[in-house]
Order: sequence, then structure tokens, then C-alpha cells
Amino acid sequence: MTAAHPFDHAVHLDPVGDPADTVRGHTHPDWANMVGPFGGITAATLLQAAATHPEATGDPVALTVNFAGPITDGAFTISRHAVRTNRSNQHWSLELTQGDAVATTATAVFGAHRDTWADTEITAPAAPAPEQVDRGGLIDSIAWAKRYDMRFTDGALPADGTGSPSSVTTLWVRDSAGRPLDFPALAALCDVFYPRVFLRRGGFTPASTISLTTYFHIDAAELAELGSDYLLASAHANRFSRGYFDQSAHLWSRTGQLVASTHQLVYFKT
Amino acid sequence: MTAAHPFDHAVHLDPVGDPADTVRGHTHPDWANMVGPFGGITAATLLQAAATHPEATGDPVALTVNFAGPITDGAFTISRHAVRTNRSNQHWSLELTQGDAVATTATAVFGAHRDTWADTEITAPAAPAPEQVDRGGLIDSIAWAKRYDMRFTDGALPADGTGSPSSVTTLWVRDSAGRPLDFPALAALCDVFYPRVFLRRGGFTPASTISLTTYFHIDAAELAELGSDYLLASAHANRFSRGYFDQSAHLWSRTGQLVASTHQLVYFKT
Repeated sequence: MTAAHPFDHAVHLDPVGDPADTVRGHTHPDWANMVGPFGGITAATLLQAAATHPEATGDPVALTVNFAGPITDGAFTISRHAVRTNRSNQHWSLELTQGDAVATTATAVFGAHRDTWADTEITAPAAPAPEQVDRGGLIDSIAWAKRYDMRFTDGALPADGTGSPSSVTTLWVRDSAGRPLDFPALAALCDVFYPRVFLRRGGFTPASTISLTTYFHIDAAELAELGSDYLLASAHANRFSRGYFDQSAHLWSRTGQLVASTHQLVYFKT
Repeated sequence: MTAAHPFDHAVHLDPVGDPADTVRGHTHPDWANMVGPFGGITAATLLQAAATHPEATGDPVALTVNFAGPITDGAFTISRHAVRTNRSNQHWSLELTQGDAVATTATAVFGAHRDTWADTEITAPAAPAPEQVDRGGLIDSIAWAKRYDMRFTDGALPADGTGSPSSVTTLWVRDSAGRPLDFPALAALCDVFYPRVFLRRGGFTPASTISLTTYFHIDAAELAELGSDYLLASAHANRFSRGYFDQSAHLWSRTGQLVASTHQLVYFKT
């Protein structure tokens, strides 16, 4: 491996024997969350596992990651299985295990793109250019947050005790080391938002993503054109109730192109 | 089986041997789509498979169904595996096969509910009471649509050639035979919307759901209280591009309670 960027280290996978349906990886301290790795890097690693399988075809169009249990710092194994390959798409089932325990499951759909009628209905929130916004972040103890250049235009991490009537957070975000976007990096970015309940409640409460689904709206060539530029990422919650809330978010390019729609269900404690 | 309702027939599953991880079912003509079964009934059947496993615990909170290939009219087998059971939630992997071919994969998360801080940010669209709206539907050849009492308040199926600038469809909907809601029935309802591209383009084009994710916001007791009453269901698309679009939808009770948030990625041809 020649790439020196921490993202490439984190998603690096080694094949285990033949057939190619098993790979091994290792958590990376640069992507640590409060407990275990950042969910986004786990999503990225699972997508990377499918994308690097010798039978993979097409671009990712949908990804669902279920966080079934904690991932302990150290080695893990991913099984990656193309359950069905059709003429224009391919369906993947993935499972990340440590020892005998399943820590994460995922499904991914890869597909071909063709020119069709096109339109975007959703519009990006109004925001000043990223160069006009001060760099922010999360708290110092969150290692993974330092991997991103975050510039909040709405709903930054609240000061303790100051709740907000809205769960909306909007930020410009890019890799802080200038690594160009690819699909695993975009999958990780889709989980960049701190839990919406912190914003509403004005402080920390235990919260963790249970299930994360992302739809990718652009193909590999369109993604490559974005390079390492900022994306505008905006998230909101729909309903908080009895220990769970759902978040919906959208990521746009600087020119207003919708790059991904992403949704998650989050557990929260109080 | 004593229940005479077509929904119960469609989701009926017979255990196959022991352990309980395999069940068999059969497509039902009352739930046929143009080709194969209604995606919603497939989602319902997969959720039913998990919910009726002897080890199932908690209520469904998240469900993702990937439509990997066509389901032929006839028998199918579902494998249902609790990959991890935690103190407060349980993660399922499911696969629907016919012969050697995987037709559908799914993951489900079941969870416990606890009283917490709660709020709903999204509001239901304004709509007259269902009794004030004429009953509508889809086209006569779509068998499954007759299983529902649909009353469109916005974005009914367009007349050919009459496209709409908006992809929004809103309807009151309930089981036309008065079957009370349960989680499989709610999972099916989340796929009740005809493809958004029909509305925008003003007519039919081949389109099919690739991946469907639903988050359930209420527990079994809250769901039972809704009985067989109408839900207000509203869907919109975010972006149509190069053969795919994503739909987000929300379902509310008559009193304005958000019951489910549901998202899907749809393939379309032209």
C-alpha cells in the first residue's frame, strides 16, 4: 500500500484465500469515535469490500449498513457475497465479524448508469461559500472529526444546556488532508453529522446509529470531477420518540448538484 | 389458518423443519403487480418471516428490502437469521429464494421502546378528511391496488401526456377489507405509491424499486390503536438522474402522529 492518507489505511483490506468472498481489515486510531470506530468509516470499509471484489460491476447506487454491535479496536473480517448479478445491477450482502460475533451487516446495490430524463426537485439550503465560513468541528476527543474540514453554516454542536427548536445542521465538509472523493469516502461523509438529539436537547446523551441507508446520485466519473472540494451537507430529524429518531440528510456539490441522499435510524437514551 | 383476509393469505408462512430459520410461502394473485407481486407485499412477507421466528423480540424499528430479481408466481423460501440479539435490539438478515436464485434480500432491526424525550418536527400536509375525498386507485390491471381504499388529495395517477412539475403524491389509504394494521401491513403500505416518474413524465415508463427502507416510529400497542383507520401517506422524489430516482415518504395517523418514514431507490427506463 503506497497511499499515505489515513482514509486509505482505514479502508485497506487484505484478501483471505480463494474464493475472494472474505477479506480482513483493521480499525485505525485516526478514525476512532468515543467508543469504537466512526460509523462512517465502517460504512466506507464495507462498501470498499464490495467495490474491490473481483466480480464487482457498476457503481454503488444504494448502501444500507446495520450497526449490530460494537466494533472493538483491532482486526475484523468481512464476508462479501454478490447474491445476484443482473444485466444492469448487482446485489451484495456483507457481514463484518470479530471472532464469532457479527458486529455489522450491510447490503449494497451496484448499478449501471444510462442517460435518461433528469430533474432535481430538492434544493440546497442557502449558505455562504465555504471560504467565508470559519472552520469548526466536534469535541477534541473525537479523533475522526479531525479528518474533516467542517464549516458549519447552521446547527453547529451546541453549547451545553442550549437546546435548539430545530434539528437542522448544515455544513460545508471535505477531507482535511485533501483526499479526492470516491464512493467509500462519500459513504463515510454521509455519516458526518453528530446526533440530532444533541442539537435539540442542548448537550450530550448516549446515541448511536442503528441503521444507515445512502443513495448515490452520481456515477464514478461525476464523483471524480468533484475532486477534494467541499460538499454542502444538511441533516434534519423527522421524529424523536421512545428511544429512537430518524435523520434524513442530503449532500450537494458546490454547484448545487445533489450528490447523495442519506437516512438513518438512531437510538438515543433520554 | 382461519383468517380469510387476502393479506393474511399472502404473508402466510409455513415452517420447514428445525431449526426455525427457514420458512416457505407462496405468492397470492390478489397481490399481483404488472409483473410478479407488489413490492409492498414482499416487504411485508419478509418482515412477517422475522416477526414470527420463535426467537424474535421487540418491535420492528427499521427494515430494508432489496429487490434483487423478479419473483415468479408460485412458491418461495425465506431464510431468516437473527445475526445478533442485544439487550435492547435484534438484527435480522433475510433472503427470499426461488430454486437457486435469490430474488430478494432484507435486513430488519427489532428494538425495545422506552419513554424518552419526544418531538415530531415534520408536519403532515394539509388534507381534507378522507370521508370528503372520492375514492381513487391505480389502473384496473393492477390487482394489489384493489386491496387498498385510496383517496388522493394530491398527485393522483396522471392522465397520459400530462406531466406534473412536482413529484408529490398525497393520499389517504387503508386496507379495503378493513384488516387492522400490524407491522407487516404497515411495511406494505409504505410501498403504496406508484412510481414518481409517472407523475413527472405524465405516463408510464418501466420503473421498479431496487431498495426500500422503512423506519417505524410507533410500537405494537400504538399501532394497534390505529385499527383499520386511514393513514395519510405523502411521497416525493429528490433527484431523477441517469436511470434512478430516490423517493422519500411519510405516513401519518388521522391525528397527525408520524407513523413511518420510508425511502426507496427506484430504477426507471427513460
